[in-house]
Amino acid sequence: MKLPKTLEKVSEFFKRLPGIGKKTADRLSLYLLQLPQEDLEAISKHLTQLKKTVKKCQNCLNLTEEDLCSICQDNKRNKDIIMVVETPLDLIAFENGQIYEGVYHVLYGKIDPLNNIGPDDIFIKELLTRIRNNINEITEIIIATDPDMEGEATAMYIRDKIKEIDYKERIKVTRIASGVPIGANIEFADYMTLKKSIQGREVFK
Amino acid sequence: MKLPKTLEKVSEFFKRLPGIGKKTADRLSLYLLQLPQEDLEAISKHLTQLKKTVKKCQNCLNLTEEDLCSICQDNKRNKDIIMVVETPLDLIAFENGQIYEGVYHVLYGKIDPLNNIGPDDIFIKELLTRIRNNINEITEIIIATDPDMEGEATAMYIRDKIKEIDYKERIKVTRIASGVPIGANIEFADYMTLKKSIQGREVFK
Repeated sequence: MKLPKTLEKVSEFFKRLPGIGKKTADRLSLYLLQLPQEDLEAISKHLTQLKKTVKKCQNCLNLTEEDLCSICQDNKRNKDIIMVVETPLDLIAFENGQIYEGVYHVLYGKIDPLNNIGPDDIFIKELLTRIRNNINEITEIIIATDPDMEGEATAMYIRDKIKEIDYKERIKVTRIASGVPIGANIEFADYMTLKKSIQGREVFK
Repeated sequence: MKLPKTLEKVSEFFKRLPGIGKKTADRLSLYLLQLPQEDLEAISKHLTQLKKTVKKCQNCLNLTEEDLCSICQDNKRNKDIIMVVETPLDLIAFENGQIYEGVYHVLYGKIDPLNNIGPDDIFIKELLTRIRNNINEITEIIIATDPDMEGEATAMYIRDKIKEIDYKERIKVTRIASGVPIGANIEFADYMTLKKSIQGREVFK
């Protein structure tokens, strides 16, 4: 038994998306039959235009429909601090918390030799150029790659590359803290996280 | 921080689909940027045509692009046995197993008074008409609605309605078996399932 052809095509499309299996894809495509025709036409238009309108910010590589993204355009943001993130989704995670006032640099990945991703396959060169071009303004680079093996390797690589730039110790290169997540139970934390939480301990004021 | 407009529209679309939250919707829409433009144009065309080409089979209401679905068109299927299912997805689940040789009738829902779905809101009338029109051929109606409260109520309602038809006891009305799923642990099964597994016990040959 196969779905009708058009439905099957839609289901196959869903199945290509990350984290969606055959059953979910079938369920989603059947669900679409319940939506009004004009909504399906609207999303079709957006899908066709997606890659034409969305591009990378000329400054930080965040996604935007203009030359500069909304963050780089925002005069209230502190342009002296750059947070280096792996993906636009990481950027969104920080932004949703409204906890950071600096700007970003999006790498679009991490160094991952097992998957054949080297330093030149992600946007590290663009970061270094940006630092060189703004060497007198920048005060801090926060490296916020994932605290996993590839993310740590990427962070170390970037730190070493920044150190090769002659910035006369004016720029602080920092790494986001790792430790037990807020709200979590210590008893369920893994060994590496607990080790980090001891190493990174702070004076309890 | 918001996504670029077109990306946000695509993300909002994903968020409307069942089981997809804001974060997954953002992740999926960002993933689409990696797909080739022609794939996005192809899926856009399919989405626009979806509701125009996919319709209900005139006989069993299964989804099809023709007048009759592939199952009803298949001469090898036993037209004397009708399995009544809630949705096309249930039908697919049975078909994937290749365990059933009869035909189907799709209800498109179940009687659910709490959500204002009565017997007339699903395709029960069409089932009864079909039975009446084929009263001399049909030998069995298998009611395969979900074994939950609404599914049981729907099964009972249909059984009673079929009994009102004068079929001279020729038609057997059956209900799919409930019990402990194959491969499951009895210790984790709920009370109702275990009760069903005892009530429906069979001679162990």
